[in-house]
Amino acid sequence: MQIRLGYDLRFDVPAPTVMTTLLHVHPSRVPDLIEPDVLQVDPAVSVESYLDLFGNRATRLQLPAGTIRLQTQALIADGGALDARDPTAVQHAAHELPPEVLRYLMPSRYCEVDLLAPIALDLFGNTEPGWPRVEAICKWVHERVSFSYATARPTRGALDVFTERVGVCRDFQHLAITFCRCLNIPARYAAGYLGDIGVPAAPYPMDFSAWFEVYLGGRWWSCDARHNARRIGRVLMATGLDATDAAITTTFGAATLTHFEVTSDAVPDSLAVSA
Amino acid sequence: MQIRLGYDLRFDVPAPTVMTTLLHVHPSRVPDLIEPDVLQVDPAVSVESYLDLFGNRATRLQLPAGTIRLQTQALIADGGALDARDPTAVQHAAHELPPEVLRYLMPSRYCEVDLLAPIALDLFGNTEPGWPRVEAICKWVHERVSFSYATARPTRGALDVFTERVGVCRDFQHLAITFCRCLNIPARYAAGYLGDIGVPAAPYPMDFSAWFEVYLGGRWWSCDARHNARRIGRVLMATGLDATDAAITTTFGAATLTHFEVTSDAVPDSLAVSA
Amino acid sequence: MQIRLGYDLRFDVPAPTVMTTLLHVHPSRVPDLIEPDVLQVDPAVSVESYLDLFGNRATRLQLPAGTIRLQTQALIADGGALDARDPTAVQHAAHELPPEVLRYLMPSRYCEVDLLAPIALDLFGNTEPGWPRVEAICKWVHERVSFSYATARPTRGALDVFTERVGVCRDFQHLAITFCRCLNIPARYAAGYLGDIGVPAAPYPMDFSAWFEVYLGGRWWSCDARHNARRIGRVLMATGLDATDAAITTTFGAATLTHFEVTSDAVPDSLAVSA
Amino acid sequence: MQIRLGYDLRFDVPAPTVMTTLLHVHPSRVPDLIEPDVLQVDPAVSVESYLDLFGNRATRLQLPAGTIRLQTQALIADGGALDARDPTAVQHAAHELPPEVLRYLMPSRYCEVDLLAPIALDLFGNTEPGWPRVEAICKWVHERVSFSYATARPTRGALDVFTERVGVCRDFQHLAITFCRCLNIPARYAAGYLGDIGVPAAPYPMDFSAWFEVYLGGRWWSCDARHNARRIGRVLMATGLDATDAAITTTFGAATLTHFEVTSDAVPDSLAVSA
Repeated sequence: MQIRLGYDLRFDVPAPTVMTTLLHVHPSRVPDLIEPDVLQVDPAVSVESYLDLFGNRATRLQLPAGTIRLQTQALIADGGALDARDPTAVQHAAHELPPEVLRYLMPSRYCEVDLLAPIALDLFGNTEPGWPRVEAICKWVHERVSFSYATARPTRGALDVFTERVGVCRDFQHLAITFCRCLNIPARYAAGYLGDIGVPAAPYPMDFSAWFEVYLGGRWWSCDARHNARRIGRVLMATGLDATDAAITTTFGAATLTHFEVTSDAVPDSLAVSA
Repeated sequence: MQIRLGYDLRFDVPAPTVMTTLLHVHPSRVPDLIEPDVLQVDPAVSVESYLDLFGNRATRLQLPAGTIRLQTQALIADGGALDARDPTAVQHAAHELPPEVLRYLMPSRYCEVDLLAPIALDLFGNTEPGWPRVEAICKWVHERVSFSYATARPTRGALDVFTERVGVCRDFQHLAITFCRCLNIPARYAAGYLGDIGVPAAPYPMDFSAWFEVYLGGRWWSCDARHNARRIGRVLMATGLDATDAAITTTFGAATLTHFEVTSDAVPDSLAVSA
Repeated sequence: MQIRLGYDLRFDVPAPTVMTTLLHVHPSRVPDLIEPDVLQVDPAVSVESYLDLFGNRATRLQLPAGTIRLQTQALIADGGALDARDPTAVQHAAHELPPEVLRYLMPSRYCEVDLLAPIALDLFGNTEPGWPRVEAICKWVHERVSFSYATARPTRGALDVFTERVGVCRDFQHLAITFCRCLNIPARYAAGYLGDIGVPAAPYPMDFSAWFEVYLGGRWWSCDARHNARRIGRVLMATGLDATDAAITTTFGAATLTHFEVTSDAVPDSLAVSA
Repeated sequence: MQIRLGYDLRFDVPAPTVMTTLLHVHPSRVPDLIEPDVLQVDPAVSVESYLDLFGNRATRLQLPAGTIRLQTQALIADGGALDARDPTAVQHAAHELPPEVLRYLMPSRYCEVDLLAPIALDLFGNTEPGWPRVEAICKWVHERVSFSYATARPTRGALDVFTERVGVCRDFQHLAITFCRCLNIPARYAAGYLGDIGVPAAPYPMDFSAWFEVYLGGRWWSCDARHNARRIGRVLMATGLDATDAAITTTFGAATLTHFEVTSDAVPDSLAVSA
């Protein structure tokens, strides 16, 4: 299977400013790109590309005042399978984890491990370690938290989600990540193209999406406490400690998003071949 | 000038566990070591050394049950000067900062930039950017927050420090770091040997200490909102987003600290030479 | 001047439940009623009337399942003057305050006096006590907090308002009340008919409104940190520690508000006479 | 049985100030007083006595600079029985509660009912209403929260207790009160003489104590989430929404407590008769 990816973002920028973006597929998916995801900026501006602290491909743009448009069109090969799952993947003891994974056991801005540790132990301390524990966490968060765009706020951390029981995508993942870390399962935030592949079309426009990853059995696995269902066709763009590290765009000044379009369409192999 | 560094830590460990440490001088200070800071562990255990996400030299130890002792003795060359200061060091615009510095403008667990931004603007928005702004922040935190061991708690973030106006070392630095980031000055947490060099002896036993660093004029500078005074003889061990990343020891299980001794003594050059 | 007051509220109630209301004018305004504000409930239900802890005229209704309608029509005499103001009204020392006023110096759910005391002192400690201090507080809150229905949430306390700088009516008043109490000025929450008298019509439907009262010079005065302007024709319904005590309706079970209409219209005296 | 009650408090007062106290037995216990609990103030000062908003007997003192001493000695009759208990006392529906009890279902400063409601439902929603539910709450709080003087802080609310799992007397009661209110059981804070009667002597000096009361089966009952055990000889001094309303002394200025002694000793009836 192949997936046609793309976005078309437009901003009104009242005064020259700087923007950083995470608008590329994650380096781990670059080998799958059939057509590269070139970031087209209109008007042309100075673009600096770099790997950020978490290994994501980031860019920094110097934006002039006016209208700015960021676009890409890319084609990526995808196995077309549901999110990988292995109930036998073990939960590692702290001495078995690769050192670079240890940081994902610790607190971060929206994942207050120190505040939620006793709660996590109360709720999930009796579940079987590893995969069943992660599934219990995703199920709990999915069932107990209600989705609500109207209540979104950028300052909401996992403890707020736990008490308010409402949230948007990122809030679900923050709470699940925090519970995992509290129970010594490394967990990190993930952002990317979610795809509508294999599921009914969502009743709202396609957006970038947040999910999370856990480290079990020697590798990272995609999880999603918002939907609590496996998906076909996730394409990772960025990972980090929490939403702080995975903002698709960050502007150091005023900028108003005026247009937002994301596409992620499965292309049957037959069509792809003939193309 | 030379400084004799050392520590002697002992723990009671009821059951085998894993500990990570940041007990080495920071890689940036390794060239100054005259005698290396070998981490001696008694009894001998498996020790794994690695650089963590923030570039600190970390170790992971597998501790058996019983008493564990961690020691070092090292000698380091030091210019013997007060913390560097340059009032002309400029505050960089976002496009001028090295990409790896950008993360230090963002929120972290104990530095809730998103919550304190309007407050920082109220308090310091009219100060002159750059060095004077950092000094105004350090002065404010130093004068408005009272030191109090008795009220220490591991969950206190910068907003708590701002409302409660009490704290220990780390709390002072967290509030100052947050204010700096709110005003677009990159700031990171620092831990190390503080030294009592050139200041009256403290009325309590020597400890590792926390300070912070700001990025101005193309480099990082040491600042200290707890003491708000320049020091001689700081020796950096670790930096990170906040105290989460700079814990001297982190244990994945029970361990009781039973002995704690840190030394950091100036050795006059004459003596050093004759040695 | 006379004011015609009224409301027409309808609820869908899925199962029998209990509702308490504060749908009467405050006992202090009862002498001004020309036509009484009879609470009409349709269908007729058991209605119990009582004075609550704060001296408000409250009712408790046992609601059957179905549609419930609460209405009143009343006529009240009003001086037609702007909110009273006396810049010479003094701030009382604690020993001069009537004992029943002392509670309005203390913290309540949405007015965290204990958390905001140092902040209040920083911001307003140098203002002249009494009236000028209250005006400085109202001005600050009015100018620094933005009105936003979209961000309303029932759990937002004064500290949240201070950090987020957005809110609805009640949030503005909570922050101002808290600042007043921090500086030893008794302050309480107030709810009632605001009236559009003497001001341009609001761009949204008439609603009940929140303001607050301060105790200076031996009496309570109406203040409004949301609008920071004096009004004609406020008609008080309830006061209390904060919004907890002044909810117009509280339901002990499910009930959906389906219709909401409040009227508060000035009736010229000539018309009133001929009526 | 009779109980000899008393206290001896001394304060250093640097400048004239005002103090309010709740240093009398609660009006509900006045009929039991054999010797009245006269508040002796040395030096003699102006003392004003009044009932506060919650029906407690309060006093307001104008203190001169210098040393101030507050004392009483009283004798009270007591049934000598353990705290009353009636497992059949029913939980009332909202329409059955006396109106003056309704306020004790709502949030207050340290009892954030709005934040803890879903948590309370998770934890206790399946317990049997009424007495068993209250007992389940007391047991949970008693077992999951650790007593710690060292961590006391005046700003800690019920949610903080729930996340931190440590506290002093008041913190245990705040969390239990909040859970009760979340589940529609009226609950209020109580302070008074605890007595060491019928229990081993505490390892620390006698203090006033905090407990709480729930309204079931038509009356208030004493509960204690700190000790989770019935006591002999509680003598109530004050009730209120939470600790805000039951502070034994509140000073509107500086005052240092220099001496603190509370006595509460059982006097066998034989001795009492002969006296």
